[in-house]
Amino acid sequence: MSEKLNKKHPRYDSLSARYSLEDAQKNGLLAGTAMIAHGRGEAFDYLIGEQSISSALNATRYAAKLLSSANKPIISVNGNTAVLCGDYLIRCAAIIGCAIEINIFYRTNERITQLTNLLKNKKKVIAKENINIENWAKKVEGVKILGENAKCKILNLEGPRSNCCCEGIYDSDVIFVPLEDGDRCEALVQMGKCVIVVDLNPLSRSAQMANVTIVDDIARVGKNLFESLLSQNDLQDIGPWDNIENINESLRWINERLIQLANEK
Amino acid sequence: MSEKLNKKHPRYDSLSARYSLEDAQKNGLLAGTAMIAHGRGEAFDYLIGEQSISSALNATRYAAKLLSSANKPIISVNGNTAVLCGDYLIRCAAIIGCAIEINIFYRTNERITQLTNLLKNKKKVIAKENINIENWAKKVEGVKILGENAKCKILNLEGPRSNCCCEGIYDSDVIFVPLEDGDRCEALVQMGKCVIVVDLNPLSRSAQMANVTIVDDIARVGKNLFESLLSQNDLQDIGPWDNIENINESLRWINERLIQLANEK
Repeated sequence: MSEKLNKKHPRYDSLSARYSLEDAQKNGLLAGTAMIAHGRGEAFDYLIGEQSISSALNATRYAAKLLSSANKPIISVNGNTAVLCGDYLIRCAAIIGCAIEINIFYRTNERITQLTNLLKNKKKVIAKENINIENWAKKVEGVKILGENAKCKILNLEGPRSNCCCEGIYDSDVIFVPLEDGDRCEALVQMGKCVIVVDLNPLSRSAQMANVTIVDDIARVGKNLFESLLSQNDLQDIGPWDNIENINESLRWINERLIQLANEK
Repeated sequence: MSEKLNKKHPRYDSLSARYSLEDAQKNGLLAGTAMIAHGRGEAFDYLIGEQSISSALNATRYAAKLLSSANKPIISVNGNTAVLCGDYLIRCAAIIGCAIEINIFYRTNERITQLTNLLKNKKKVIAKENINIENWAKKVEGVKILGENAKCKILNLEGPRSNCCCEGIYDSDVIFVPLEDGDRCEALVQMGKCVIVVDLNPLSRSAQMANVTIVDDIARVGKNLFESLLSQNDLQDIGPWDNIENINESLRWINERLIQLANEK
């Protein structure tokens, strides 16, 4: 179904994301229910208006500030995240100077290897980009792609979903972990980490458990995070952070949109 | 991922639907983006509270009335519908005395045949059920499964998605067509048919275009429709029908739920 999409289509971004995931699924990069999870996100994004609202932009800027000032920051990506915004997260990791860890819920060695290769290939392309940052190629090449030797355990979590890399998630102090499962988000918070999630459902357990919740589409967040990291000056004035108040702002937005959509008919 | 699910799990219905679709996808019964569509439904169902609300029950009862009194009723099913509630729709068709037409958006002969076989196998099991209806086995056996010789065209629609059976959708006056695409729903309405849709998004084009919109989960609708058809007496008092007002009732419900969920935190 990877139809040729016209870039002028009013829903080009949403449709091209859908087709990218479909291709990735066919190639075995995604768990069986990954597409359902994406569909849930699509519905919430529809209610939000398929845009980065101000509460999401503020959360993204705060995330940029936390990642920039962390001692051991890490970017954790699952299959959907790697497919939909691996490019931008590699660029972000290059600026932050941190590693990326492939961290999938239904862990198989095969999928970890496939996703590692996907990101390593993206790195080669991104290293050649003409971005106005000193030593860009070297910075990109320096981004470690972790995930394959997951010998440490996330505490209070059972089964293969608890596996993580000792020098990655396990040792981190600030973790950017989009599209995360509620149980695992809770376990990471309990380990004392500062947890930044991206979740289009403001009421999900992950959204509610995290220290910083970005209620936004992961592809838009990748781009916004990159831009926030580039303009560090703008980050000085953010904080202290009230995550629940920020989530409530997105809920109020959805409610107002629903009332408006109902009246427009 | 077809994990053994505990029937006491609070979200058993939702999770077992998810795993059924995952199996069907692996077996080639579903289009690539079918799982994404299901995920969108899951999100709206989450907002509704995973229950059949009163506006949905009223719409289902009105649908039962229309299907019972039609001259040429038809039940149209796509892949997700066949997997998630094929059983109940066969039972409904047996009571109404109508055919079922397999009617998929990304049409391939292979998937039409697979879905036809799925429903034919379900028919054999259902014919043996001990249901207190005269000549039950004969009625079930009499339900035609159409879709394979789609030689007519839905007007004002292009490509293979316009194909339909002459003795099925094309000739019908009342069509029950769950999880339908907006364009095709519009084309069916333009052909003068009375179109009944099931769509968890009250704002979708299908929901807005249809004559009767049931904002509910397809598996619950199948069961409710069957029960409404069994108790014909209860159908006398329904109508006239204001579809937009009924849709707005579901929108108000979602808004109130969102406000309540936000306050519960």
